[in-house]
Amino acid sequence: MQNHPARLIAKKRDGSELTTAEIRDLVSGVVDGSLGDAQLGAFLMAVCCNGMTPPETAALTLAMRDSGRVLQHTNVTRPKIDKHSTGGVGDKVSLLLAPLVAAAGVAVPMVSGRGLGHTGGTIDKLASLPGYRTDLSPERFSQVIEQCGYAMAAPSAEIAPADRRMYATRDISGTVESIPLITSSILSKKLAEGIDGLVMDVKCGRAAFMQKEHDAVLLMEGLVATGKQAGIKMAALLTDMDHPLGLALGNSLEVAEVIAALDGHCPDDLREVTLALGVEMLLLAGVAADAEMAKATLQRLWHDGVVRQVFRHNLELQGGDPAVLDDPTLLGRAPVVLPVEAAHSGFVSDVDPLELGRVVVDLGGGRRQPADAIDPHVGIVLKKVLGDAVETGDVLAFVHARDAAAAKSAVARVLAAMPVGQERRRRGPLVLRRMA
Amino acid sequence: MQNHPARLIAKKRDGSELTTAEIRDLVSGVVDGSLGDAQLGAFLMAVCCNGMTPPETAALTLAMRDSGRVLQHTNVTRPKIDKHSTGGVGDKVSLLLAPLVAAAGVAVPMVSGRGLGHTGGTIDKLASLPGYRTDLSPERFSQVIEQCGYAMAAPSAEIAPADRRMYATRDISGTVESIPLITSSILSKKLAEGIDGLVMDVKCGRAAFMQKEHDAVLLMEGLVATGKQAGIKMAALLTDMDHPLGLALGNSLEVAEVIAALDGHCPDDLREVTLALGVEMLLLAGVAADAEMAKATLQRLWHDGVVRQVFRHNLELQGGDPAVLDDPTLLGRAPVVLPVEAAHSGFVSDVDPLELGRVVVDLGGGRRQPADAIDPHVGIVLKKVLGDAVETGDVLAFVHARDAAAAKSAVARVLAAMPVGQERRRRGPLVLRRMA
Repeated sequence: MQNHPARLIAKKRDGSELTTAEIRDLVSGVVDGSLGDAQLGAFLMAVCCNGMTPPETAALTLAMRDSGRVLQHTNVTRPKIDKHSTGGVGDKVSLLLAPLVAAAGVAVPMVSGRGLGHTGGTIDKLASLPGYRTDLSPERFSQVIEQCGYAMAAPSAEIAPADRRMYATRDISGTVESIPLITSSILSKKLAEGIDGLVMDVKCGRAAFMQKEHDAVLLMEGLVATGKQAGIKMAALLTDMDHPLGLALGNSLEVAEVIAALDGHCPDDLREVTLALGVEMLLLAGVAADAEMAKATLQRLWHDGVVRQVFRHNLELQGGDPAVLDDPTLLGRAPVVLPVEAAHSGFVSDVDPLELGRVVVDLGGGRRQPADAIDPHVGIVLKKVLGDAVETGDVLAFVHARDAAAAKSAVARVLAAMPVGQERRRRGPLVLRRMA
Repeated sequence: MQNHPARLIAKKRDGSELTTAEIRDLVSGVVDGSLGDAQLGAFLMAVCCNGMTPPETAALTLAMRDSGRVLQHTNVTRPKIDKHSTGGVGDKVSLLLAPLVAAAGVAVPMVSGRGLGHTGGTIDKLASLPGYRTDLSPERFSQVIEQCGYAMAAPSAEIAPADRRMYATRDISGTVESIPLITSSILSKKLAEGIDGLVMDVKCGRAAFMQKEHDAVLLMEGLVATGKQAGIKMAALLTDMDHPLGLALGNSLEVAEVIAALDGHCPDDLREVTLALGVEMLLLAGVAADAEMAKATLQRLWHDGVVRQVFRHNLELQGGDPAVLDDPTLLGRAPVVLPVEAAHSGFVSDVDPLELGRVVVDLGGGRRQPADAIDPHVGIVLKKVLGDAVETGDVLAFVHARDAAAAKSAVARVLAAMPVGQERRRRGPLVLRRMA
């Protein structure tokens, strides 16, 4: 670092605005280690407490992006648009959305993360596809996009190394909950993908990172403003995460749900959110005149099987076995599957996504710690959703588990997470707000 | 630690009050290392940004005190009162005050620090006394107090180890400027000395840690309230550090000034501040009925040579050569001494203590970094003070230096730091405020 670290940290502590050069200096210290752990912890906390101005957040984002390799995709001529979600339970949208939007003429360079805690990760879901590889070199990543319209990769060590150290430090030091830090962490990696535009799916509700709509809207605004300042097109949807998305929760179970959806068997909520995000991506890409035409295009491509073909092509290119499309049992299955049965009649009065997400983690389908291994087959498949009428003994859900004991424990928790009452409640709107 | 560090850090980040048990847990993590550097940096910054309530600050102070050995002095029957200054330029008060107050029947267990930056440290000044040892064992420390009424020691590794790690971390991470952190750092070490009462000399002005009176008063209030909560008697004076204290700046030069003062040749400002602090110590000790009687007692002991005798006794007990009292040339002298002469006539219109303190550091008499070695003999002796009338060629000060080049450079800087103008300015009051 050129500046004395303590001076820059104290400047942020005192609420002053750091210059772009000062922020670049700090990020250089993050990467080369001249900013020590105590200094990084103090800086991150100063940002948590005092925030950052939009220019500071944009400067931090770009400095973090430039801390590693920035992909170019020089042979990809289509507009390059990605989607990113802040994470939820049952959120398999990316797996469906990437081929859907690619089918409509958009290039989707999608670098995704792994799951942690009760929220799943796209890379974990993809890992349950036999043979599918997400450890693509930047060159191969570009090639796959060029050939089938989209590629899905895990972040390589070359991408935004500053974020890796900052994220690990935030995780242990109580400095996760900061809009500028969340914004720069998300956008630095996305900008390094070499995209022209990004659609953010900001989740809001019990199982979302942001539980309150007010906080989620602030994050949404920060993301849209910072992305634009950083020179890409931005749109964002605020979507409901007060209930699980779709019916399958757990890695291979969610992939199976996506394969069924490609064949037209898609839960309504998953279809609605996927189409809404797809419309935004087409609009950002400039390949649709308006939202209505974008939606009609996407529905037609989906209905006509074009999306399924793009998905199959991508599977082939990334080493997966396309046979799973015709025979999803190739995905494998957990050894024990137990039904969760309603104890009395009435209406499903809640489906608690946070508790269901935690049950999946405890079944072995998610991580408590970053180094935890994942069992791809365990999870929950809902058979009823909020407001459904049930009779005593009706199956509310199936639990997929490694053994009988785990299954039994999970059944009791799922039963408690899906209470049956006499009042019929309806789910609220899925898309709560739009920003572009 | 029993709690997850990130949870406690986030609690402080969000402005909540930590419990005594939570603070003790954090401090245990500071000592045993289970609170990592990034976590400590983040916690310290959260305290900088959000502050601490008085109960939190007291709990932190006591937990830091209890992180190491707490001295007892079971054989010392006198009331045990110490003084601590927040640091200034020319501040040799401790060397004079300890024997003064000891002569009046108070026990003074004084653990002092080393200097850093432009402010000097009592331990560095004492190091210029030939043979004088400040590395006393706790047992010897008690014995010396018992025998001559006071002892002066450097902090041992056993005292408040939590503060050592926290102080080093604050120094590099921009988290120095926090009243709860300054308060707990000062008081934890002082409480570990085994004192019944403490008089704080909070300096205020250009060369003080707190330059603005408002900040200094806040610190003063925090120190007094926290010390009382921690169970000791407290008093505090806010004293001026907009000018140097006394005329000598530099380690052995200041000791020589103290020796002369013991003989009755004391600059007025040094005498006034020393007596004012001594009065507070006698009052806290309960050995004087009121401030007037306390002052009279101290003046008599000083005038009658009793203080000089106590100083001599302490010198003998701590390994120093008492002959320096009769022949201060035994302290040694820098090889080059150059006068700083007034370029024109008028009145000394400023004596900038911060610049003079920096000149002393650059002459080799202070530390830029904690590991720097110190030259005991270099420094500045003022011959004129604010408001003094001078003629062209009058000596404003003498510079004591290691070589001619250093002396020449210092002379130019001292000249600039002591401008001569036509307006006669007077120094403001030395004691700005009292709190008890």
